[in-house]
Amino acid sequence: MFVVKNSDYKARVANIFVSARFIQDVGYRLRGCGPGWCETELAVEPRHWQQDGFVHAGVQATMADHTAGAAAGTLMRVDELVLTVEFKINLLRTAVADRLFCRADVLRPGRQLTVVESSVFAVAGEKQTLVSKAMVTLALVQQVK
Amino acid sequence: MFVVKNSDYKARVANIFVSARFIQDVGYRLRGCGPGWCETELAVEPRHWQQDGFVHAGVQATMADHTAGAAAGTLMRVDELVLTVEFKINLLRTAVADRLFCRADVLRPGRQLTVVESSVFAVAGEKQTLVSKAMVTLALVQQVK
Amino acid sequence: MFVVKNSDYKARVANIFVSARFIQDVGYRLRGCGPGWCETELAVEPRHWQQDGFVHAGVQATMADHTAGAAAGTLMRVDELVLTVEFKINLLRTAVADRLFCRADVLRPGRQLTVVESSVFAVAGEKQTLVSKAMVTLALVQQVK
Amino acid sequence: MFVVKNSDYKARVANIFVSARFIQDVGYRLRGCGPGWCETELAVEPRHWQQDGFVHAGVQATMADHTAGAAAGTLMRVDELVLTVEFKINLLRTAVADRLFCRADVLRPGRQLTVVESSVFAVAGEKQTLVSKAMVTLALVQQVK
Repeated sequence: MFVVKNSDYKARVANIFVSARFIQDVGYRLRGCGPGWCETELAVEPRHWQQDGFVHAGVQATMADHTAGAAAGTLMRVDELVLTVEFKINLLRTAVADRLFCRADVLRPGRQLTVVESSVFAVAGEKQTLVSKAMVTLALVQQVK
Repeated sequence: MFVVKNSDYKARVANIFVSARFIQDVGYRLRGCGPGWCETELAVEPRHWQQDGFVHAGVQATMADHTAGAAAGTLMRVDELVLTVEFKINLLRTAVADRLFCRADVLRPGRQLTVVESSVFAVAGEKQTLVSKAMVTLALVQQVK
Repeated sequence: MFVVKNSDYKARVANIFVSARFIQDVGYRLRGCGPGWCETELAVEPRHWQQDGFVHAGVQATMADHTAGAAAGTLMRVDELVLTVEFKINLLRTAVADRLFCRADVLRPGRQLTVVESSVFAVAGEKQTLVSKAMVTLALVQQVK
Repeated sequence: MFVVKNSDYKARVANIFVSARFIQDVGYRLRGCGPGWCETELAVEPRHWQQDGFVHAGVQATMADHTAGAAAGTLMRVDELVLTVEFKINLLRTAVADRLFCRADVLRPGRQLTVVESSVFAVAGEKQTLVSKAMVTLALVQQVK
């Protein structure tokens, strides 16, 4: 269903994580990717909390957004960049967790716009609880050299 | 127009910044607040960038969300918490900036739900350019002791 | 997983369609419902078009919203109303179709807020194509007699 | 600030209303437009209600979306179409009104994507009450002859 336009897309996606300083700084880690999808995780620390001890909405939103960008990135051409146009996220439950896991799936690939859904889960041992869900619109744009 | 229910709301809002570890960690700073509004700023550093040298969408989203929460917080009762229900953000321009400024205004206060708009600006000297705009729905919930 | 609080919920959902004048006027039809879900359809006519002969975004948005409300309605108490707080919809493809089908599923039931996802499909014979997807936040509120 | 690329844009916008069958059918009326903005109105009738006698969210969403499209349309080239990519709307108050008024303003014009804000007001005599607000992303696409 999804057409890969860059045979080396896995290295490209890995690079979207390594070279994004904010992603490194907060501590998100790439877990895997394939055509049209990406999975990430975060070991939650107190520095990720909001004022009441829950994982900050911004931590979840950044994870949903970046994982969506990487999922779109699996379908990019070599000379393209991926930029977020907009996203919407519903925080479904207050997230109290040692670990977050995120899965992003391309809902609609496009030449210019790609729409991706991201789900963020609180992980406790074997148990995963959906804590937030996002819909993300991304633009693939020609890289300027 | 806005009814303040906690005469000490400024201290409360200040505390929403000081005690939110993620906000401290990323470096957002409260600049001012009043009934139904809040302003914040961020001195942008390379650690806030995404993979192409722009301010990460997550940095902007966190700022829009947290400033909105603080704006809603100016109208809370002493015994209430503010939690984000959902938000949507449009990234209008790629943000290349040394400083970000955010202004959040309550659009609709409510007993249970408050709707807030946040605008994020890239600041260069005297010039401010709107880089993203968010609409945020927040819930005011009774604190459990 | 979903708790039904009104044994007569199917009649209640049916009534959400029959008594909503705009729904009758545009022509949406209830196809079925169960705990936490609802399905609807629309026989597309030229009066549902926008200026270029595609199904109007508003026709799709109304369908996504109302079907979501009905899905939330399957979990309401007898004395509650369902009201839309907000929704976001992505129009994924221009919809050229004789029939639209919509499926809404509750993602997160709550005492006060319920979050529902709705998918709208263009139907051509046996083939269904996803044309839009919405995330809808709804409030269950006590009916005032 | 806004660059008009079609000197005959007013006729074009008028046509976006006249030729959109759903808009005619529901009864929205163009009130005025200029570079980057559009205003519309609707005489509310019982056929616009949801099940509890409020104006249906879909009626408000359609108005917000179409007025936004027309605002974007004031900045289109002659050979372009405007299509909604996505929108998000917050229903701020239950709308009980004889008349709705909508104002849409372009927040960010773009070659490919235009972002517009729409506000819907309930009108009672001289008084206007904001009942919903939307943020709409639209694509300008080359017309295929």
